[in-house]
Formats: sequence, structure tokens, C-alpha cells
Amino acid sequence: MSREPKLSLIPLGGLGEIGKNMMAVRFGENILVVDCGLMFPGEEMLGIDIVIPDITYLLENKEIVRGIVLTHGHEDHIGALPYVLRQLNVPVYGTKLTLGLLQGKLKERNVDAVINTVKPREIMQIGPFKVEFIRVSHSIPDAVAIAIHTQVGVVVHTGDFKIDQTPVDGQVTDFHRLSQLGDKGVLVLLSDSTNAEIPGYTLSERMVGNTFDETFRQATDRIIIATFASNVHRLQQAITVAHRQKRKVAVVGRSMVNVVNVAYELGYLDIPENTMVELDEANRLPRHKVVILTTGSQGEPMSALTRMALSEHKQVDIVPGDTIIISATPIPGNEKVVARIIDQLFKQGAHVIYESASSIHVSGHPCQEDLKMMLNLVRPKFFVPVHGEYRMLIKHAELAKDVGIPTEKIFVAENGQVLEFTRRTGRIASRITAGKVLVDGLGVGDVGNIVLRDRKQLSQDGILIVVVTIDRDAGLIVAGPDIVSRGFVYVRESEQLLEEARLKVKNALDACADRGISEWSPIKSQVRDVLSKFLYEKTRRRPMILPIIMEV
Amino acid sequence: MSREPKLSLIPLGGLGEIGKNMMAVRFGENILVVDCGLMFPGEEMLGIDIVIPDITYLLENKEIVRGIVLTHGHEDHIGALPYVLRQLNVPVYGTKLTLGLLQGKLKERNVDAVINTVKPREIMQIGPFKVEFIRVSHSIPDAVAIAIHTQVGVVVHTGDFKIDQTPVDGQVTDFHRLSQLGDKGVLVLLSDSTNAEIPGYTLSERMVGNTFDETFRQATDRIIIATFASNVHRLQQAITVAHRQKRKVAVVGRSMVNVVNVAYELGYLDIPENTMVELDEANRLPRHKVVILTTGSQGEPMSALTRMALSEHKQVDIVPGDTIIISATPIPGNEKVVARIIDQLFKQGAHVIYESASSIHVSGHPCQEDLKMMLNLVRPKFFVPVHGEYRMLIKHAELAKDVGIPTEKIFVAENGQVLEFTRRTGRIASRITAGKVLVDGLGVGDVGNIVLRDRKQLSQDGILIVVVTIDRDAGLIVAGPDIVSRGFVYVRESEQLLEEARLKVKNALDACADRGISEWSPIKSQVRDVLSKFLYEKTRRRPMILPIIMEV
Repeated sequence: MSREPKLSLIPLGGLGEIGKNMMAVRFGENILVVDCGLMFPGEEMLGIDIVIPDITYLLENKEIVRGIVLTHGHEDHIGALPYVLRQLNVPVYGTKLTLGLLQGKLKERNVDAVINTVKPREIMQIGPFKVEFIRVSHSIPDAVAIAIHTQVGVVVHTGDFKIDQTPVDGQVTDFHRLSQLGDKGVLVLLSDSTNAEIPGYTLSERMVGNTFDETFRQATDRIIIATFASNVHRLQQAITVAHRQKRKVAVVGRSMVNVVNVAYELGYLDIPENTMVELDEANRLPRHKVVILTTGSQGEPMSALTRMALSEHKQVDIVPGDTIIISATPIPGNEKVVARIIDQLFKQGAHVIYESASSIHVSGHPCQEDLKMMLNLVRPKFFVPVHGEYRMLIKHAELAKDVGIPTEKIFVAENGQVLEFTRRTGRIASRITAGKVLVDGLGVGDVGNIVLRDRKQLSQDGILIVVVTIDRDAGLIVAGPDIVSRGFVYVRESEQLLEEARLKVKNALDACADRGISEWSPIKSQVRDVLSKFLYEKTRRRPMILPIIMEV
Repeated sequence: MSREPKLSLIPLGGLGEIGKNMMAVRFGENILVVDCGLMFPGEEMLGIDIVIPDITYLLENKEIVRGIVLTHGHEDHIGALPYVLRQLNVPVYGTKLTLGLLQGKLKERNVDAVINTVKPREIMQIGPFKVEFIRVSHSIPDAVAIAIHTQVGVVVHTGDFKIDQTPVDGQVTDFHRLSQLGDKGVLVLLSDSTNAEIPGYTLSERMVGNTFDETFRQATDRIIIATFASNVHRLQQAITVAHRQKRKVAVVGRSMVNVVNVAYELGYLDIPENTMVELDEANRLPRHKVVILTTGSQGEPMSALTRMALSEHKQVDIVPGDTIIISATPIPGNEKVVARIIDQLFKQGAHVIYESASSIHVSGHPCQEDLKMMLNLVRPKFFVPVHGEYRMLIKHAELAKDVGIPTEKIFVAENGQVLEFTRRTGRIASRITAGKVLVDGLGVGDVGNIVLRDRKQLSQDGILIVVVTIDRDAGLIVAGPDIVSRGFVYVRESEQLLEEARLKVKNALDACADRGISEWSPIKSQVRDVLSKFLYEKTRRRPMILPIIMEV
């Protein structure tokens, strides 16, 4: 075996998917983890609340995990920590706002953690890793890329970033440090692929401020802005423009109130005196003096905006004259529910501004030309696109080819693949356990494919339960068969169908008795077959059929 | 009461929604219906196959319904006919291809109908209505707008249309006739709002042909094109380009094979000799000589493309080198499933072309400037935007204002509202029954809110069934309580939880017995309460709880 030192990169989440970003970096008997995010469930994951990475690999190597470093405070980068830290208590490193947001989550779930605040350009020694934090612009303040200096070489992980020449907080992506690193030589670049399908450049967050300014001027009445709770830059711009135009601002929605408090306390929000008011005070002001900032830009069912749209919000009634700005793009999968909210708001007579075309929202992620810029600055020997569904990683790999990285030095990898690097070589070496852990209520991982398959079947055609009580000794039916159904047909109008079904079951049971079958399992499967066939013929539906035999 | 003659327009579908388009036109004791479409269910309509309009109003006025006229052969305009004609047997009028496609559907479901073929510029007398069919371009051949000449005035219903100066079949929208009508005076225009949110002009279908040409030239191997089965123009262009570049074409997917056959037989597809081959023949040809046309551009689970992507198609294996063109835009709600198919195809090594930016698809509906053109040509006295969700109708109404129609002459209406017109006035006069009828298997309308609510609950947290057999006379439990669950927890790993739950139920039953409660209903509700509380505490889930008591 070669004695050449080796460095492994092991993606535990975020490759082939959007969300649950997590990357393990291994050097000998030392592991460093970058980010620990959650993912929101796809619609096929019925009843699931959130999805977190499978950390089997880390638990198997518990003793050598030296720490978790965080790039920024979004859920898809920190949201799994309350679960993961319970099983893996290692120190966490991040910038001030990132940790401020994290601490709220940890407190809510009673999780203790050792946390270490870092600053951009600071270098922390974590085990054998020299970890450097590098300022990047993103849709939340205090985001960083991470450079990991090892004996084998330097790994640069961009985290999420955008190239914004005029960021709201003045914190431009640290091009200087990235280019210094590029100059000295970077072994591997891991870079954000979220927008790798989109040509051109991402617009500056400041564009949205200009649009706010214009829109506020045209609004004759109350203004309601829905955006992501964590987009502090966006909140800042809304507050600044409101103040300039002599409006007061009220914040509605638990998560946004929380972010505003944390960001303000930590100095990430500049709020002019006498600008913020409570909602009940806002309701007493003339409507043209009011801006309401709210959650719900994704049409979340319980969010403030959704309740306003459905006239179910206790304190905010939408009235004709209101201008409602939805300052966000629907995340894929949310398009229809957001559209329904917009329709409802229009029906209530509001003027709704929602087009992505209107610069009412800009992305927090880099488009193709921005990605090429990052590749050219860092000039890595090897490139691994991260943070994206498979086709996005493919597109990002094509961009890397375009700027001159040889195909064989680009790895479009999957979660769980071990990428092994020496100073000169790189390869996909092996595979470890990785995947999804589903969280449903208090259950972490107890809902898997079997339960989901049942939920799917139940959701499509409902369930029919057949109960019968049998006298074991006499071999006689003493009660039933009774049929109960849910989600199958409207029972009151289907009495005849259900009665016929009951008779089918009775005949099947009698036939079993005649043939001397007394084992439960063949009886049940006979009942299931007869009923399933009968119901499919009559209705072309396939409800779940659940025979239950009680013995006395 | 005024003796002035009145004309009513009664939307039965397609307003405030995309799909199930249907409009009743009433003059005295005469009703004419325009279109009779279906809608695909939203994801909240669990297990539902299709949605059709509620035709209570027509059934209540059965004797005076004179006929149904069709604008074109898309499902959202003809798809409800097999259901509606069973209850309402009236003559149907449409162009040749529209009726050709309809007849297949009627045959499949054994429905008889009197159908009458019409031609553009032809005028049919249907009851008191003079009905004129006017050529429009759309994403299916043989589409028409409809002008209804009545004593009160002329109603023009555009159906679905686009303004295409270079349509593939040369059949340009009949601007001349529309402008003649506009010249003479049109009372009401009903116009397609599908793209009313999109600025600019819709590109010509011919653009896609150019892109095919270019893409075919670059493909070194097999080409697979997925598109809408009914887009005969698109199929024509693929076939023409394939022939020109000396490739053979095979068609895969039941619905596409059907459309190709009908369109070819009726003369709407021009297929050069020796161009079409069966799939097994195509599989024997060199790969660079083959084009496969297939369904599945919307990621439909059972479609040919989906099965290919999942390596489940019996005759087509995707291999590296294949070029796959997805010549369609995902319909809202389908984005995620289409993205997953694209990812799968990439993973199999195919080159996938899918960006809407690449002119690989153009819309069949008019954008804002096209809509203004239609409004300016027809110059109606009154305007009713149709075919669109609420915000689209609102946007379309704004466009009408922009071209000079007074606000009070524009009606943004809802399904079921009766719009009443005289020669000079228009108003929303009343409301009749309208809405959705859900089709699930053979059941038409038997699944309603109660069943859907049950399916929703079942899909989120599953079901727990508690069965107990009680000796009525002795008041004793003789069997059970047993607990069976589905879709709630993974049973094998939750034995303890379920056993604790069983004990909770037993205690509750004993307590009832002690307190002399022998009525089923309070016992059941006691069991439900105890169990629901216990399970929520332990799991934060709320499964459906179904207590069943058997008596012996």
C-alpha cells in the first residue's frame, strides 16, 4: 500500500437533492463535518415533517469526529443539528448570526452543545485541520465559505453563496482571499450548484430594494410583504424603505419575529428608532402609514399569509386597497399552493405583486457566469459540484469543463460515495452508508418504506376493515362479519355495496368452514382476495383490506 | 319587466381554474353549450382520477339544451363528454379531428352520441342560435373559435388559441373573419386567459422545428422525443425532420399511437413513405438512424418515458449516447416529478435537452400582446376572460382595460354566475349550481369532502383499529382489545408502544364497565380520547382511531 497521505471527502447529504447538506472530510483518524442540514419532505413522503441525513458513518466513527463547521444559518445547513447533536456530541463552529439562530433551535429541543464563534478570515485548528472561514454573500448575513488546510492540500467548500457586488450589508464575497488561495493552489473545490441550470448572472439583492422603493411610492394604502423569515437583507431593505417613506413596520409570524429579534440583538439589522410597532398598534394607524412583514411566501398552510388569504387571521383582514408583495419565488413543488394564495388575495380585492419578472425577488445562489467566476478564482485541481439535484450537478460539471478543468478531474458524486484524494490523484474509492432519515413527530427514523407504502395506499383508495368473531371450539361465527370503511366510498350512499361485500365475506367464511380450513392466515387471505376482486369490479378501486378475526 | 331580449352566459367550468372548460349560452328557452372538458385532480384530491363539471343546471333544463359545440380535441375541452352524454344526450358539433379523437373516447366507454362534423366558416343553425366556426391556431390541429349569432348580439368565444404567423399546417388564425365580426359589432368576447400573466408574444410552433433540426444534426446516436400525445404539429415536425435526416420513426405510448393513427387517417399528419417503423424494427436499426416519439413529458407514472427512465420499459433501454428531448413544459404541479425523470435519464448517461429556454417547446396559448391583438380585432362591447385561474383572469381584465374597454364592461366571473346581457347592458344577474364532480374509478361523484378528509388523515398518520368483543349479557370482554395499525409506526419496532396502548384501552373499557356504561357510543368515544391523547404524547402523531365493538 502506498504511504502517500490521503484525504477523503464523503458527502452525507446535498448531492442529488436540494437540502440536508452535509459533507464529511476525513484525514487519517480524523473527521471534520461541514454543515448539518435538514430537507423538507417530498410529497411522496406522506405525513413526514422533515428529513435529516443518515449519520451511521459518523456514529461508527464517533471517536474521531473532531467537530462540525457551519457555513450559514439556513435550515438546510443547520436544521438537523438538534437531532444529530443528541447522538454525536462534538463542538460546533460558526459565525455569530449562524450560531445565534442555531441556539434558538437547540433550546427549543433541550439540546446542549459546545459552540465556538468564529470570524471571517479567522483560522481554527480542529484536530489536524486548519479551518479558515471566508466571507461570502448569500440571502442571509454572516455566510462563509470554508477552506480546510490539510497535509494533502487545501479543500475549499463554498457553502451557499452568490456574487453580489453591492450587498445590502456591504459584505462582499472575499474575492481576495479566494484568489490568494487559488494562487497558492487548491486541491479540491466544492461549489454550490443550486442555480447551475440558469444562464447569466444573479442580480444583486439591492435590486429588490429599488423595487420596494418604487412599489411603496405607488401604494396608496397598506403594504404587506411576505418573504423568507431568514432573509435579513430583505427585511432590512423593507425596513429602510418603510422608514424613508414614513411608514411603520409590524412583523407577523413566529419565525420572522424570532429572526428579527436575533438579528437585531446581534447587530445584523439596523432599525431606525420608532420604526417598529406591534401589530395592534399598526392596526390603529392610518393604512397608508403601515407595512406588515410576514411569513408565508411559500404558501405554508399554517403561515400568517395563508391565514390572511383565507380570512382566518385574527389580527389582519385583507381589504381592497392593500398592496401585497410576495417577495420570493415558489420553491419547486410549492407552485400550486402559492398560486392559490395569490388567487385568494386577489379575490379579497388586494393588489398582489408576485411576478418573478418584476425584480421583487432575486436568488441567493450563483448562476452560470457566477459559478465560472468562482471556478476561475479558486482554480482547483479537482472539482466536485455539491448542493443540487443530479441534473444541476451535471450542468455545473459542464461549466467546469468550459473553464478548462479536465473531465477526469471532475466528480459528479452521490451521497455516500467516498472521494479519495492524494496530492496528485483523485478517485471514487468506495461507498459508505448514507441516505435519508425521516422525522415524523417525535419519531426519528421509525417511519420507513413500509409505513409510507401503507400511507400511500390509504391515501388513494382508503381502507376496508372486516371483523368477525369466531367460536374457536365450535368453529362458528358468533359475531359479524362486520365491515367498516374509511376513505373508500361515501358510506351513506353505498349501503348496498357494503352489504353485498358483507355477504361475499360471509360466503367466503362459510366456504372455508365447509372445507375445514381453520387456520387464520388462509382464511384472511381468502377474505382479502374475494373482497378485493368484488370491489375492483364494482368500483375500479383498490382499498386496503384488513381482515380481523377475534376468537372467543 | 322589460321586454328587451336577454342573453345569458353561464360558465360551468374553466373560470378560476385551468381545465374542465364549459360554457352555457342561454337565450329564452334554449341552451347551447360550448365545450365539455375534464380537469386533472389537484394533489389534495387524493385518489381521484379526473374532475368533471357539475352539470346540475343542464340536467334541470334538459329539455331545452340544443347541443354541445366543441372548439378542439384537448381533454380539457372534450374529456367530460363520455360522462356528460350519458346523462344528457344532445347532438355534438365539432371539426373532423376533434370528433375523430372524441369518438375513440366514446367507444372506449360505450357511449352513443349524435355527432355533426363542421368546417371553419360554416354556420350551423342550432335551435335559435346561428353558430359559426372560425379557424384558430393552437397546439392541436383543427381548432376553432365560435361565434354565436343571436337576436341580442354576437358572442365570440375564442376557445384555446394562439397567434402563429407560420403555423405548421398553414392554417393561420382567421384574422379576416374575426375582424369582419369586429367591424359589424360583437356583443361579448370570451377569450383564453391561460398565458395572460406572460408578457410579449407566443413564439411560432415552427421554432420548435428549427430546434429539432439543429438538435438532430448534433445527435450522434438515437433520439427520443417526449411530448404531448395530442400535439400533432409537434409530431409532424419531428417526423418531417427525421425523414429529412434519414432517420426512421417509431411511436411509443398508447395515447400517442392512438393520436398518430387518428390524425393520419383523417389527413392531419403527412407521413413520408417508409418513415414509420415498429419499435422492434427500430431496435434492430443502427442507433443513429432512429427517432422514438413517446408520451411521458409530464412525468406521468405509467408513461413510456417514466418507465424508460426507471429501466422498466420492456423494449427501450436508455444507453449512454442517447439524446432525449423533452419537448414540453411541466404543467404546474408536475415540476418535481419531471425533474426526477430528467435526473434519472442523466444518471443513465443520456444527454437530456429540457430547458424551456432552448426553444424545444413553445406554448399553444396567447401571451399578453397576442391577447391585446384579439381584443382589438374583435372590439367587443363586453369582455369576459375565460380559461384561467383567478389571477390570470384579473391580468386579462387589465389587458382589456389597456386596450380601452371600460372597466364596467369587463366581467371577471366565477363558475355558476349568470352573466345577463341585453343589446346595451350587461350584469352579473344570479347564480346557479356549478362546481366539481370527482371521478374515482367507476364512481362519479360518490367521493366528496368526507371521503377526501378521511384519505387526507389516513395519508398523514395512518390508522389504528381497536377491536373488542363483548358479551352483551354478562357485560364482559370476551376477546381483545386488539390493536391493528397501518401507516402509523413500523409495527415490528413499536411493539412496546402498541402494547402500552392496548393496556390504556383495556383500562378505559374496565373503567366504563365499572361506571356501568354499556352504550357503544360513549365507550367508543372514551377509547378514542384515551388513545388519541396517549399516542400524541408518545409520538406527536394523530392517526385515525377506529374502535370496533363486536357483541356476542
